[in-house]
Amino acid sequence: MTAQGSVGQVVDAAVTLGHIREAHARIAARIHRTPVFTSMSLDEIAGAQLFFKCENLQKTGSFKIRGATNAVFSLSDEEAKNGVAAPSSGNHAAAMAQAARWRGVPAYIVMPSNSSPAKKEAVRFYGGQITECEPNIASREAVVAEVVRRTGAHLVHPYNDARVIAGQGTAAVELLEEIPNLDMVITPASGGGLLSGTSIAAKGMRPEIRVIGGEPLNADDAYRSLKSGKIEDAATAETMADGLRATLCPLTFSILRENVDEICRVSEDEIARSMLMLWERMKIVVEASGAVAAAPALFRKISKPGKRIGIILSGGNLDLRNLPFAAIPPR
Amino acid sequence: MTAQGSVGQVVDAAVTLGHIREAHARIAARIHRTPVFTSMSLDEIAGAQLFFKCENLQKTGSFKIRGATNAVFSLSDEEAKNGVAAPSSGNHAAAMAQAARWRGVPAYIVMPSNSSPAKKEAVRFYGGQITECEPNIASREAVVAEVVRRTGAHLVHPYNDARVIAGQGTAAVELLEEIPNLDMVITPASGGGLLSGTSIAAKGMRPEIRVIGGEPLNADDAYRSLKSGKIEDAATAETMADGLRATLCPLTFSILRENVDEICRVSEDEIARSMLMLWERMKIVVEASGAVAAAPALFRKISKPGKRIGIILSGGNLDLRNLPFAAIPPR
Repeated sequence: MTAQGSVGQVVDAAVTLGHIREAHARIAARIHRTPVFTSMSLDEIAGAQLFFKCENLQKTGSFKIRGATNAVFSLSDEEAKNGVAAPSSGNHAAAMAQAARWRGVPAYIVMPSNSSPAKKEAVRFYGGQITECEPNIASREAVVAEVVRRTGAHLVHPYNDARVIAGQGTAAVELLEEIPNLDMVITPASGGGLLSGTSIAAKGMRPEIRVIGGEPLNADDAYRSLKSGKIEDAATAETMADGLRATLCPLTFSILRENVDEICRVSEDEIARSMLMLWERMKIVVEASGAVAAAPALFRKISKPGKRIGIILSGGNLDLRNLPFAAIPPR
Repeated sequence: MTAQGSVGQVVDAAVTLGHIREAHARIAARIHRTPVFTSMSLDEIAGAQLFFKCENLQKTGSFKIRGATNAVFSLSDEEAKNGVAAPSSGNHAAAMAQAARWRGVPAYIVMPSNSSPAKKEAVRFYGGQITECEPNIASREAVVAEVVRRTGAHLVHPYNDARVIAGQGTAAVELLEEIPNLDMVITPASGGGLLSGTSIAAKGMRPEIRVIGGEPLNADDAYRSLKSGKIEDAATAETMADGLRATLCPLTFSILRENVDEICRVSEDEIARSMLMLWERMKIVVEASGAVAAAPALFRKISKPGKRIGIILSGGNLDLRNLPFAAIPPR
């Protein structure tokens, strides 16, 4: 496994269970081994036993700290000495800031100018230095290139990076170490980093396991990409699951084609209701993107449902002042 | 320790650490041993190390299942055979319904007619049978007496009951077993069941520990009662901490007078901000009454602050469609 050479260019991308185990050894002392929660009332709703891997309780509030920490601590001192850079408006941004602080180097985060104050504040809280770009891809790539040129920082893409994918796979390793006999595991699908890492870990540890991606119907590019055989655009991507607006890259697309059994699409209403169920029954704060992994089970939308289902709740960062619960009638 | 004979009448009320340990042995296999969470960012805010005992993650969503289960499983088969009865509009109601179901006997819950649909639904979910009363004390006592007479059920008061207090004390036993060297422990103060049980357990296991009650300024009857030396009314009790509107009873008053070092009053704004901090930083759903125990530490309002503070987050049951966060500006 070799790191990417420059933006979007992956030199040698094979990620194996061995790489994921190496990543786990590298990061385990810094991250939380998050708990696996269960709920009898949610099991009843799903008609299956559900095992929730609570990455919303992870450091920085999401699984992204796994990939970021693995990438940052994979660097040689020479590679790391000028710091690290990352384009992200969300959870990868905070994760990279925290990982860089642990490594003792600066983190240069390129964020769209319209990012929420809360997300900028989170990056600053973990010590990251923010450079703003316009909220479009051309501006982002130009600003990232400029920051890398100016600082000499090492770029870590949110998912088009084998080290990041290996790190994200460590959540599934922990889940399957704790609950070995799962029939399937579900994660959200976006850029595909978590789903890729999870699929390699899960099928490596348990070849008969089914790996499912949950995806918003309104941003179903992974579903369409696996159907058409080429990477499709996200189209409008008007979804409350704001962490799932990214599209696949060649690396994650090739892993998903090989490993993922099904992409299960869920409506905005199903996402909101799943969030509410998770909050009400398990008393945990799960962001909409995390609920997207639970919705296929809670609404029984999986084509070949299993009896024991692992669900990776990806994160818990969201604006608590603006929640999508008001329109849902009480049971 | 003997159970109460009839409504409000406690026959022999001495509760000791020994009773609490017996209660723990009686209930441990049925309840969750809830986790103790920590947060570096909340520690910074408080200027102390905080250890949150997460009873919001407890079965039925609050610590009340501890006292209810201990009371219900303390009964002889003869005492239990006609079921149990309880007056409660809140967490004790759901807890009694669940405990009775475990025991295999009916639970008759007397709830005010204006209880929220969600709370009634929770009681039914756990198998409780609801009898409505008017929302005043006279009606409640009359209906409870009628239900007990009609059914022969055994009454379990929410806190004026030594078995209930012993059960509530088991949360502090677990907390101190896990984090032995606490300087103080804080719980919410309402009827005083949790605070009484906590104080007996904590001072029994660690005599030098300070025991603090958090109480809404708008329902500060425990504060005023300990000051005046007699049980004071709750006055208006207009507080978002709707679990804390009860007043002390002779049993809890006498325990609190002996054991509690300080009642620390917090404003509605401090309660709402503490809730938001707990949700944002720890990604857990904590009801307003639970946040009342955290607020004295987070707002540094304790007169002799300790370095290591245990906080019992009492529950996580609340209406998620109506949260008090909108008025709090982002940091």
